[in-house]
Amino acid sequence: MLWYDGRIVEGPVPFDLADRGLLLGDGMFDTALALDGRIVFEAAHVARLVAAAETLGFLVDARVIIEAMRAVAGAAPRAAVRTTVTRGAGPRGIAPPAEPRPLVFASAAAANPGFAYASLRLQVSTIARNETSPASRTKTLGYLDAVLAAHAARAEGFDEALFLNTRGRVACAGTGNVFAVIDRQLVTPPVEEGVLAGIVRALLLEQAPSLGLPVQERALSLDELRQAQAVFVTNSLRLLSPVAAIGDRSWPDDEDVTTARCRELIARAVAAAQA
Amino acid sequence: MLWYDGRIVEGPVPFDLADRGLLLGDGMFDTALALDGRIVFEAAHVARLVAAAETLGFLVDARVIIEAMRAVAGAAPRAAVRTTVTRGAGPRGIAPPAEPRPLVFASAAAANPGFAYASLRLQVSTIARNETSPASRTKTLGYLDAVLAAHAARAEGFDEALFLNTRGRVACAGTGNVFAVIDRQLVTPPVEEGVLAGIVRALLLEQAPSLGLPVQERALSLDELRQAQAVFVTNSLRLLSPVAAIGDRSWPDDEDVTTARCRELIARAVAAAQA
Repeated sequence: MLWYDGRIVEGPVPFDLADRGLLLGDGMFDTALALDGRIVFEAAHVARLVAAAETLGFLVDARVIIEAMRAVAGAAPRAAVRTTVTRGAGPRGIAPPAEPRPLVFASAAAANPGFAYASLRLQVSTIARNETSPASRTKTLGYLDAVLAAHAARAEGFDEALFLNTRGRVACAGTGNVFAVIDRQLVTPPVEEGVLAGIVRALLLEQAPSLGLPVQERALSLDELRQAQAVFVTNSLRLLSPVAAIGDRSWPDDEDVTTARCRELIARAVAAAQA
Repeated sequence: MLWYDGRIVEGPVPFDLADRGLLLGDGMFDTALALDGRIVFEAAHVARLVAAAETLGFLVDARVIIEAMRAVAGAAPRAAVRTTVTRGAGPRGIAPPAEPRPLVFASAAAANPGFAYASLRLQVSTIARNETSPASRTKTLGYLDAVLAAHAARAEGFDEALFLNTRGRVACAGTGNVFAVIDRQLVTPPVEEGVLAGIVRALLLEQAPSLGLPVQERALSLDELRQAQAVFVTNSLRLLSPVAAIGDRSWPDDEDVTTARCRELIARAVAAAQA
């Protein structure tokens, strides 16, 4: 299901090939879970897209984003909603137009219900996450590193890539934030390490301490991660994925107690958001 | 002037919004100079696009690229031709389709004639060029770092950004390769440093030695670059741009002898290619 230019459409749409999203990756996207036609954590998803546009130096109307997301949210009882925002068309060259007219569209399809809470095997990517770029903290349209890293990981029997940043420290998984359980505390890298401010990540940062689960945002080495009691990945579609392996380091199948509590916290927050 | 789906078109075109070039930056582009309707160094431009697709793991038909480029090459007596190739549409998610159907389109507009050989003032970007990614050696659609860096450079009175790689060594300018003149020799970083294999760059590597101008491809520090006798940037539209400044280091206006010889070599090669 696809929303474009004010309505639900099918097949090819009239499109300006001078769009900077297509030509330069000049834009960003968001992936949200929709349950029974409602976007889970809608306000947070909208706010993040608006903030990302500000980071790139343009304004996008939150009402258009909300209209787009809601229009496709009912594509399936459990739907994955992708919202794309570009800076719109511009003149030749890389300098942005003085008055950008952003393009917004959204698509949705059934999300795999087995996806949530399923475990992942991660391979450390040879491609570094470039924390020196604002793009590393934004879900920009330039997603090729994630595409190439995921392809390499799958070719060797893993599910997804784990990215270290240019300093060799832990950044994130290909499509999610990384948490380590160390001494029964949660540790996750700060956004400065080249990390997207994930929405489930923000939920844990905010709510886990009230359950007696302190969360440290700090730089994390690969060694620390491999030695952690448990590791998990969060994102808006999968919610929480226990990590079963990072390269040749594997963790046992039985669920870690701290991970289980985080999973329950997230499930409750999802249910509360839909109530 | 725009070529799309087999013919010259105007205005919006029918477009599949599942195109991975738009959604993920999964594709690449090329910018070529066309003089009097002929693409300068056409074979090299076509070969580089085909090779870039191979790097990303798909095949694109060189004949379609040639048809697209040539169709728009006469847009102006001195035209800038941009050819875009994407992996085409795919299913939801980041995994590439098993049988990609690449999309090719090309556009052209008059190139500024004063552009060639005009000097540039460069500002060292705070964004590193990520040489750990194959994307750093390919003109991928994910061009946002160059957009942001150019914007920052212009805001401070410079023309363009100079990128160092994640090791702090010289990579390239925002839209061109960097050459330093050191002891009357040319030095340019190898592609492994996070550098696009530029077409004018390749011309100098191949032909400058026959004029008694050895070219060293080696890692280059920012200090060496700032202490160089002269610095210039090459790209397919501007051909050769003397660098007038890098941050607070500036060079005198009168042209460096080695730079002048390179400029003449390039001008002769362009003329020969069009004969």
